[in-house]
Amino acid sequence: MSIFEVYFKYMLASIITIGDEILIGQTVDTNSAWLGEKLYQIGFTVRQIHSISDKSEEIIRAIDEAIELVDLVIITGGLGPTNDDLTKKTLVSYFKSELTLDIEVLVRLENYFKGRKIEIKEAHKLQAMLPNNAQKLINNYGTASGMWFEKNNKVIISLPGVPYEVKGIMEDSGLAKIRENFKLPFLYKRTVLTWGKGESFIAEIIKDWEEETTDLGIGVAYLPSPGIVKIRVSGSGDNDEIRAQVDRRVEGLYQLISEYVFGEDNYKLEVSVGEELKRKGYTVASAESCTGGYIASLLTSIPGSSEYYKGSIIAYSNEIKINLLGVSKIDLEKDGAVSESVVKQMAVNIRKIMGSNYGIATSGIAGPDGGSEEKPVGTIWIAVASENGVRATLLRLGKQRSTNIKVSSIMCLGKLLKEIQV
Amino acid sequence: MSIFEVYFKYMLASIITIGDEILIGQTVDTNSAWLGEKLYQIGFTVRQIHSISDKSEEIIRAIDEAIELVDLVIITGGLGPTNDDLTKKTLVSYFKSELTLDIEVLVRLENYFKGRKIEIKEAHKLQAMLPNNAQKLINNYGTASGMWFEKNNKVIISLPGVPYEVKGIMEDSGLAKIRENFKLPFLYKRTVLTWGKGESFIAEIIKDWEEETTDLGIGVAYLPSPGIVKIRVSGSGDNDEIRAQVDRRVEGLYQLISEYVFGEDNYKLEVSVGEELKRKGYTVASAESCTGGYIASLLTSIPGSSEYYKGSIIAYSNEIKINLLGVSKIDLEKDGAVSESVVKQMAVNIRKIMGSNYGIATSGIAGPDGGSEEKPVGTIWIAVASENGVRATLLRLGKQRSTNIKVSSIMCLGKLLKEIQV
Repeated sequence: MSIFEVYFKYMLASIITIGDEILIGQTVDTNSAWLGEKLYQIGFTVRQIHSISDKSEEIIRAIDEAIELVDLVIITGGLGPTNDDLTKKTLVSYFKSELTLDIEVLVRLENYFKGRKIEIKEAHKLQAMLPNNAQKLINNYGTASGMWFEKNNKVIISLPGVPYEVKGIMEDSGLAKIRENFKLPFLYKRTVLTWGKGESFIAEIIKDWEEETTDLGIGVAYLPSPGIVKIRVSGSGDNDEIRAQVDRRVEGLYQLISEYVFGEDNYKLEVSVGEELKRKGYTVASAESCTGGYIASLLTSIPGSSEYYKGSIIAYSNEIKINLLGVSKIDLEKDGAVSESVVKQMAVNIRKIMGSNYGIATSGIAGPDGGSEEKPVGTIWIAVASENGVRATLLRLGKQRSTNIKVSSIMCLGKLLKEIQV
Repeated sequence: MSIFEVYFKYMLASIITIGDEILIGQTVDTNSAWLGEKLYQIGFTVRQIHSISDKSEEIIRAIDEAIELVDLVIITGGLGPTNDDLTKKTLVSYFKSELTLDIEVLVRLENYFKGRKIEIKEAHKLQAMLPNNAQKLINNYGTASGMWFEKNNKVIISLPGVPYEVKGIMEDSGLAKIRENFKLPFLYKRTVLTWGKGESFIAEIIKDWEEETTDLGIGVAYLPSPGIVKIRVSGSGDNDEIRAQVDRRVEGLYQLISEYVFGEDNYKLEVSVGEELKRKGYTVASAESCTGGYIASLLTSIPGSSEYYKGSIIAYSNEIKINLLGVSKIDLEKDGAVSESVVKQMAVNIRKIMGSNYGIATSGIAGPDGGSEEKPVGTIWIAVASENGVRATLLRLGKQRSTNIKVSSIMCLGKLLKEIQV
């Protein structure tokens, strides 16, 4: 049973993203994902996401459709200072309102540009004109204000298209205003995060548990991404019984798959690794070949990671592996760069070079070319070294370069987490 | 004028992505972006992208709506082996057809699992049952076949949700079959890619050019992302005149902004850098502090990058900057890690350490914490070193860690490109 069957009695939301660049794939729509998650967390069911063209007729058609289906409509995009941005004009004509100058916004814009030492342009000043039936949602991160409209007990919010402005406006005031204006249900969900196994593998192990869980009216959903499968367990109702029931089911789930679990909810594997290192006062350094800095990039995407992450040597040639990482030239020639002996030396040596508690390393053939019969594309060695020694694992992945880089990075961080937790 | 006004007389397509995980933001919908781009390239107007819940009623509502508006509907998701995947069942009931065993698919599945040394499970075998009114689109990358349906001269395609399977099926057979079945218009577009300046800055410079261009019936659209603005110029018609006209307009555009341009169409800055290095037989190495491996990760995301990329030292502590990168301890103490003197030494020294023609480096405060009055969050130094010396640039960015990492990486690659092109 879809968890949405339970929720459909609750408040519904729809997200409309405007922009030809989304339709023709020049931009990936990350705003919808962020808004969907936030709305879900505060108790909305997001019924649909609709991406449409920068065209007045299309915008009006999408709003008309959404307002029939849901209680809250959030629109992003089309509020920029250039001529192809039509959302504000369209909303003014939709509501038969008119644009008036908002002095507060104008002053804010003037300060914004002064702070950046940029001369304010006429196009920017137009950003201070707002529809007279809109309540503004202040934008501290850019030039386009968010706007809140009400019509027949339903709410329409218009936001700019730049992701950090969407996030900023909603976190500063938008989400709080939504919470004040809607009576939202009690929802309880837990999402258990696993690494290293595929969806079918996990599904087979928890088959009976899943059937028992859904029979109780509790939703189970699988959310796979490269190297990671998330299992969401969710119930809805306005009492603590649901909460207890979901907790019991999650407890049962842990008994089946605890060895693959690295956290819950919005945790990322790189956060779990960081938290665990911080808790024990340990540090890590990496030596990357085929992952080319992806592991470093994951670890350093987390604020404060300098506390436990020392750094990396990315060795994209044998020469660098020998000269900087101290890998034995003889082993490199005998076994090749993609080998157990080389990846182990990389992990052991980076630990010494950086003076860290752990050393992790990758060496493999990410593809799409460079494979051989003996070592096809997707052959990747990963290793984790600590004061207790070094362990290496051979991965046999597919042919997609970017997937191989992501999955082997996740596998390497997962193995590190296990090692720290020992 | 939206370029879509011109195109609306042509073939229209709609994309439907199915999955609660998209609506609640657990997964970003990258399939739509990829499909939108491909459809646009072969001459479709993508009129809308619709993301909906894994629920039969919602799937049917979305198909009914789309089939009214467009000629081709592509559905992704909901074809997995688990119980919450309902698309195939729903399509069977929508078309009043029935599931029959496809022996060819079954044999393919058995070989697929044998090759991966995994035991085939009952759930997997269900993947060989296909609706009897569907033409199959073979999936060489996973277990769910693509399906092609026809109804009242319109086409509905159902694909799995895993991005590389979508890509694989469409590239192997889906796109070719679409081309055979639709009479597609002649379209001509060029997208000019710029780095280092914002959308408003570029828009102001090309204001008059833009007006003249759109007056000719040629579309102009801005596609901004961190550090990059793309300008798309597009015309439609079935003669060479349009092509010549678009080319002339693009030529005029180059005269205004050539110093910011790094390529056209689907090029990435890291590809332009790689091509330029290969052409001249040069190599590069990086020393990253605040970007934490993001530059390395961009460069190594390109197949064959080992030809010109030597590697990186990611130095997340002063200790590593001194010991591995040979930065002067005195300068580090006097000027701090985020300084012109330190970033220049990083760039100069990594070039020597890795034996590359160019050395690039970053050092800054990515945020959200760690700023001071003198050096607020977003203060980032970048440098490029070559045999001709070293140049450093100070960036004053915003407060968003991930944006700061992306923008400063792009700026650093852009400066490198300029240096190679001298």
